[in-house]
Amino acid sequence: MLVQKYRDMLSGKSVIRQLAEFAAERGKEIGYENVFDYSLGNPSVPVPREFTDKMVELLTTRESGELHGYSPNLGITAVREAVAASLEKRFGLPYRKEHIFMASGAAGALAHAFRLVTEPGDEILTFAPFFPEYHPYVDLTGASLKVVPPDTESFQINFDKFEEMLTEKVMAVLLNTPNNPSGVVYSRDTLERLAGLLTTKAELYGHEIYLISDEPYREIVFDGEAAPCVSKFYDNTIMCYSFSKSLSLPGERIGYVAVNPRCRNAEEMIHMCVQISRGIGHNCPPSIIQLAVAEVLDKTSDMKVYETNRNILYRELTELGFTCVKPGGTFYIFPKAMEEDAKVFCQKALNYDLILVPGDTFGAPGYFRMAYCIDTEKVERSLEALRRFVKTEYM
Amino acid sequence: MLVQKYRDMLSGKSVIRQLAEFAAERGKEIGYENVFDYSLGNPSVPVPREFTDKMVELLTTRESGELHGYSPNLGITAVREAVAASLEKRFGLPYRKEHIFMASGAAGALAHAFRLVTEPGDEILTFAPFFPEYHPYVDLTGASLKVVPPDTESFQINFDKFEEMLTEKVMAVLLNTPNNPSGVVYSRDTLERLAGLLTTKAELYGHEIYLISDEPYREIVFDGEAAPCVSKFYDNTIMCYSFSKSLSLPGERIGYVAVNPRCRNAEEMIHMCVQISRGIGHNCPPSIIQLAVAEVLDKTSDMKVYETNRNILYRELTELGFTCVKPGGTFYIFPKAMEEDAKVFCQKALNYDLILVPGDTFGAPGYFRMAYCIDTEKVERSLEALRRFVKTEYM
Repeated sequence: MLVQKYRDMLSGKSVIRQLAEFAAERGKEIGYENVFDYSLGNPSVPVPREFTDKMVELLTTRESGELHGYSPNLGITAVREAVAASLEKRFGLPYRKEHIFMASGAAGALAHAFRLVTEPGDEILTFAPFFPEYHPYVDLTGASLKVVPPDTESFQINFDKFEEMLTEKVMAVLLNTPNNPSGVVYSRDTLERLAGLLTTKAELYGHEIYLISDEPYREIVFDGEAAPCVSKFYDNTIMCYSFSKSLSLPGERIGYVAVNPRCRNAEEMIHMCVQISRGIGHNCPPSIIQLAVAEVLDKTSDMKVYETNRNILYRELTELGFTCVKPGGTFYIFPKAMEEDAKVFCQKALNYDLILVPGDTFGAPGYFRMAYCIDTEKVERSLEALRRFVKTEYM
Repeated sequence: MLVQKYRDMLSGKSVIRQLAEFAAERGKEIGYENVFDYSLGNPSVPVPREFTDKMVELLTTRESGELHGYSPNLGITAVREAVAASLEKRFGLPYRKEHIFMASGAAGALAHAFRLVTEPGDEILTFAPFFPEYHPYVDLTGASLKVVPPDTESFQINFDKFEEMLTEKVMAVLLNTPNNPSGVVYSRDTLERLAGLLTTKAELYGHEIYLISDEPYREIVFDGEAAPCVSKFYDNTIMCYSFSKSLSLPGERIGYVAVNPRCRNAEEMIHMCVQISRGIGHNCPPSIIQLAVAEVLDKTSDMKVYETNRNILYRELTELGFTCVKPGGTFYIFPKAMEEDAKVFCQKALNYDLILVPGDTFGAPGYFRMAYCIDTEKVERSLEALRRFVKTEYM
């Protein structure tokens, strides 16, 4: 018989995907260039030239078996070494290949991290606003995801609520900075306070509490800043990284798990990832993509368009009277809707061909997300529609 | 705390991998060309030229976002259409894209198939000799794999034992033809009898029993034959295919689930695969590999070397007095050892630099596997060692 829990999931459609489909349909009527589609977080800038060149070079010079053969289950050794060296240079922690497990994007990395440290019945906490896929990612392991309500002033952490919810059943805390959907970069203060609280509670409960740090937006930070490195604040950190956003190749499924070298049993945890893989059909990420990515570890796509778009939108939104935390990174902005129910607000916006995503999906009702990974020219053209929308409906 | 079941698995090392490591070590002493390494099933022939050409063409002509962007969760639509058309043409069943889910190799496809039709506590039956990774693949889902003892006369199915074990708890039967490790192709008679029994028992128990058909060796069949198509014999068949062996690219992680168009709820099952993906971190196979493979669906690597090797080894082994079922495909042969304990037999073979894998690992004690996906020249050179081994130890 077919398994009911997966059948039941078929009826629940992602709001983001529904909106993206609406945008595509509307595009057929009026031309997609006239639909101001802020729904999907799909990188809009090309991969670095060096990645493409490396791929072609590999294909034209390497022997087939060496290039396309089975990768070791941990990932290609030289690639793990390169990732470790890059992390060490960047963050000053003593990463070695023994701390690196190559994974199929952040989704693959997280699937391993959750299974490393939780069993069915355990709890994982995350902070609103949060990426809604975390729910199926966690809940389908048998553990359960609990969401700490947002601090809507700053979209940092609501520590009062967090402390309340950080019970003995919590085995891991899942963090996403720079954050989807708020665009906020968690500050040093936030991370210090978080680490302190986790250390105290772990001691009190007599078991580790792991910090699972989902960092696909690490390289997209504005104003010449860098995102504070989560692993530097807390030893028991499992970093989950994806190259999807920094190299603009979300379809190629490449990322890694990096266990903090200071974490007790770090090397054992990496070997446990291989065992977890056997149960979830993972095996390893594509070998040619591993080899190519290893050559461009310290490169990114040219992402200044995201900062330009952030500047244009933040200025316009605040001028129009929106309450809005200024994003420090990513390609998202998360303003307060102009009426209580953000679903109604976003529904009305559709009449102006503005595709906005209600914050309910992200655990923050009353707010909405705009994914501005689109051409600046389109962002600029959307301003007129935004103004018309606000002036007509809310002034 | 770290999850104990994965920690416990760390001590249990794969026998095949241990032998491969021994071969590599020994190679450092005497030169790897002098180690007759029959341990690993890693394709030895190159990918078809057309695959490489297509990859380069994609990289040099396609726009980055289109090439490397997120693939739909079901796989790229045009690729699913191409796979369906190829299957329809080949097997005469009315496959459409609605029956195809692109997966990361056979391991990925199987991870979805098991979760489609079993819940924790359910049983899946498979037939010895069998691929030992089936155990973690199934057992880590919470279902349990039970192994039907072999019919050592033919390495087809031992129907007496099978019928005994086909209880009400069995929700799926896992089949691998052409078979690793025996090299045997299941006959039409076998498949008809299997289908008949499944139909009878499903009716008796009042629930479907699905046939999960793992077919990575489908294209490696000898003597101008083709492997009978399992799906044609039984409606409730979930085909799990991998391009790893047929195109020699096991590292690139590409395959698919194809639900029999005649299976009730086939289209729903494909959509359920997407939901399953969310829980196991799958997402989709690499987009560029999907696009390239779609261009070479009806091609294979040049695999005549495997048939040549089969012929040489089968003749030599039978001449030396081994009992041996003649492989109809794959790149494996599975003779009876010359003493009762195949582990001891294979241990002694190491003294002759012959790396053979004891059948215990495959659920068939007393037999051993040779993976002859190596150069014919090396197979020929190994014969002298094989003769010396047999004559010294067993004559």
